[in-house]
Amino acid sequence: MTQAMQALAAGAKQAARVLAKLTRGDKDAFLLALAAALEARQAEVLAANAEDMAAGAAAGLSAAMLDRLRLDGGRLTALAGAVRDVAALPDPVGDIVGMQRRPNGMQVGRMRVPLGVIAIIYESRPNVTVDAAVLCFKAGNACILRGGKEAVRSNTALGRIMRDTLAASGLPAAAIGVVETTDRDAMRELLQFDELIDVVIPRGGENLIRFVREHARIPVISHLKGVCHTYVDAAADLAMAEEICFNAKVQRPGVCNAMETMLVHRAVAAQFLPAMCRRLAAAQVELRGCPETVRLAGVPVTPATEADWPAEYTDLILAVRVVDSLDAALDHIARYSSQHSDAIVTNDWPAAQRFLNEVDSAAVFVNASTRFNDGGEFGLGAEIGISTQKLHCRGPMGLAELTSLKFVVLGSGQVRG
Amino acid sequence: MTQAMQALAAGAKQAARVLAKLTRGDKDAFLLALAAALEARQAEVLAANAEDMAAGAAAGLSAAMLDRLRLDGGRLTALAGAVRDVAALPDPVGDIVGMQRRPNGMQVGRMRVPLGVIAIIYESRPNVTVDAAVLCFKAGNACILRGGKEAVRSNTALGRIMRDTLAASGLPAAAIGVVETTDRDAMRELLQFDELIDVVIPRGGENLIRFVREHARIPVISHLKGVCHTYVDAAADLAMAEEICFNAKVQRPGVCNAMETMLVHRAVAAQFLPAMCRRLAAAQVELRGCPETVRLAGVPVTPATEADWPAEYTDLILAVRVVDSLDAALDHIARYSSQHSDAIVTNDWPAAQRFLNEVDSAAVFVNASTRFNDGGEFGLGAEIGISTQKLHCRGPMGLAELTSLKFVVLGSGQVRG
Repeated sequence: MTQAMQALAAGAKQAARVLAKLTRGDKDAFLLALAAALEARQAEVLAANAEDMAAGAAAGLSAAMLDRLRLDGGRLTALAGAVRDVAALPDPVGDIVGMQRRPNGMQVGRMRVPLGVIAIIYESRPNVTVDAAVLCFKAGNACILRGGKEAVRSNTALGRIMRDTLAASGLPAAAIGVVETTDRDAMRELLQFDELIDVVIPRGGENLIRFVREHARIPVISHLKGVCHTYVDAAADLAMAEEICFNAKVQRPGVCNAMETMLVHRAVAAQFLPAMCRRLAAAQVELRGCPETVRLAGVPVTPATEADWPAEYTDLILAVRVVDSLDAALDHIARYSSQHSDAIVTNDWPAAQRFLNEVDSAAVFVNASTRFNDGGEFGLGAEIGISTQKLHCRGPMGLAELTSLKFVVLGSGQVRG
Repeated sequence: MTQAMQALAAGAKQAARVLAKLTRGDKDAFLLALAAALEARQAEVLAANAEDMAAGAAAGLSAAMLDRLRLDGGRLTALAGAVRDVAALPDPVGDIVGMQRRPNGMQVGRMRVPLGVIAIIYESRPNVTVDAAVLCFKAGNACILRGGKEAVRSNTALGRIMRDTLAASGLPAAAIGVVETTDRDAMRELLQFDELIDVVIPRGGENLIRFVREHARIPVISHLKGVCHTYVDAAADLAMAEEICFNAKVQRPGVCNAMETMLVHRAVAAQFLPAMCRRLAAAQVELRGCPETVRLAGVPVTPATEADWPAEYTDLILAVRVVDSLDAALDHIARYSSQHSDAIVTNDWPAAQRFLNEVDSAAVFVNASTRFNDGGEFGLGAEIGISTQKLHCRGPMGLAELTSLKFVVLGSGQVRG
């Protein structure tokens, strides 16, 4: 097992040197060939996916889990389209920033270069296998992909198509490695190879991410949960606040940038809460509120417990709390937010400024829905996930976030005195 | 023990919220007050340092170690001067980059914000305690400092002065925490507090850094060793190459950006090596060479073994190898470099371009000494160290590298469709 994992990682490291030198033209040619191969070889992927689906059903996976696992012609066509979209994105590698001449005449700047080898550890959805691979590839990185055990046959089939297309394009097949075992020990071993792998990105539930952080000797970019807040300030436009809160909770409740807690300033609570809560209740949202919310809502509200404030429901459930001031809202957010996406609705300039400056989250919003925390919506193109840590990058990770900056120094014989 | 460490980290986390809000004026006022206090309270620090020196001498520390440990009036005055230099640097916090308007009218940009709480783990020199603290502070971060056990009395005295000055400035004393125990278990515990500490920066020998990487659940920025190369190309100006190589090896051999291996293209080896080796030998540099170097040098050269190529001597020792081509030099560097600082000397445009693009090190030089890899020389101001990892930042870490970018979104009621 160790040997197989080591071979995978060593192969990726060797391939990374080749990938780092490719031009954008070389890379896009591969991506377009891959999109065509994914379309041409649908039957092979669907057969493997059918086996995963049968095994999943036999193992008693929930309907939601089975839906995430399922591929069909439409989903595979969309996947090929996503690969073509990545081909259309600009190549970040080779950009030079901040070049300046030093007093001794030497020029110093920073060049954008690939990270090297990126390991990505994720859960059920097999389309991530391709989405993640092509983003890493376009940014000049080799990758090692370890998906969920329930999708292993689908992932193996997709990995074979990517490997074949690499080889047919004259590129090292080891540039995109798919872990074809579901053994947890294999993952633990992979996380030890700090000489071969530059970064590991875990995507998924809290348990997976804790496991990776605990066992990795390699730098980790965590994509943790989203406990996102919207604070309706005393100076909010209440009609706007209602639209923003409704959107943030209801438009797609199962994702990490959906609102989980709504904070409402006491001065507007009596005016705002009844209509808002009626509308949320009509949309089947279960409300869990502080005593003041229970009193004012005008619809049934479950009394919130301490466990509700840090909860990520990813469901049609909303915690609601009335606060006495902007400071109380900031304190609540500092204590309970997962530092993913937090919003204020206000027309008050100083309140907006304080919120923007003081809330320490990956994305901070004034008068907009937290649902916008997304690479596409922010203009980065496709994203590999949303970082909730502070090192390297916060928020959506696009192609540039899959690179690093090295110093380049252009001299004419300078020596240090 | 756990409780004391937890209290230190929790206090730092609370203090970080206060520090993040300070204006540049507030921060510089503290730094100037600290510089004055370091000058006014020299006797207290020198008394503690004398105890450390006596204990170190009794424990049999080497002369070099004792010199690193020693403080005197001149060194403390220089330390106060370094604090004033940091006060004079611009404040990176609050800068907004890349603000753009999205199609829906929402503006999206990234604001530079402190990382939060930074733990710094380092070895003997007590002046690092102040240097590191003030850089973290200026970038709006709280810090926890854990120095070498031989300097614990000096560090405790310096920590007391910093704490007193914070309190006198109306700032939380927990903003700069000094670990006053030398217990290794305490360090191990600190490395588990991923809810309280945002980043850990280990500075020192390879063993320390491996220990931190193995035990930390917190993101690490490693400052590993420098196995730096200079490649003298076939098209080098040989007089320039001699000056650059001599400077890179001899000017300060004990530091991480000094050259450890010199690679010489076969086409110029017979012409270049005799004068170069004679000059190095005259400067007391011990040469360890490949068979071709031994044959050509004209001075005594120890035959190099495989152990010489990855060696960081940090001493007047140099490994020398004759290579057949630019590709052979690139292969040698890819295999043995610690990805710190590597240089080419050449007047050949394609060779320079390939070296710049293909060498994957924190700093890549054309026609300049590797000794320039330094925050001051690169124009970043003071540095907290030189990162040898790829995540977050590579090369010298100045104030900006002690911050992160969060997304800020300025809306007017936008919701997602």
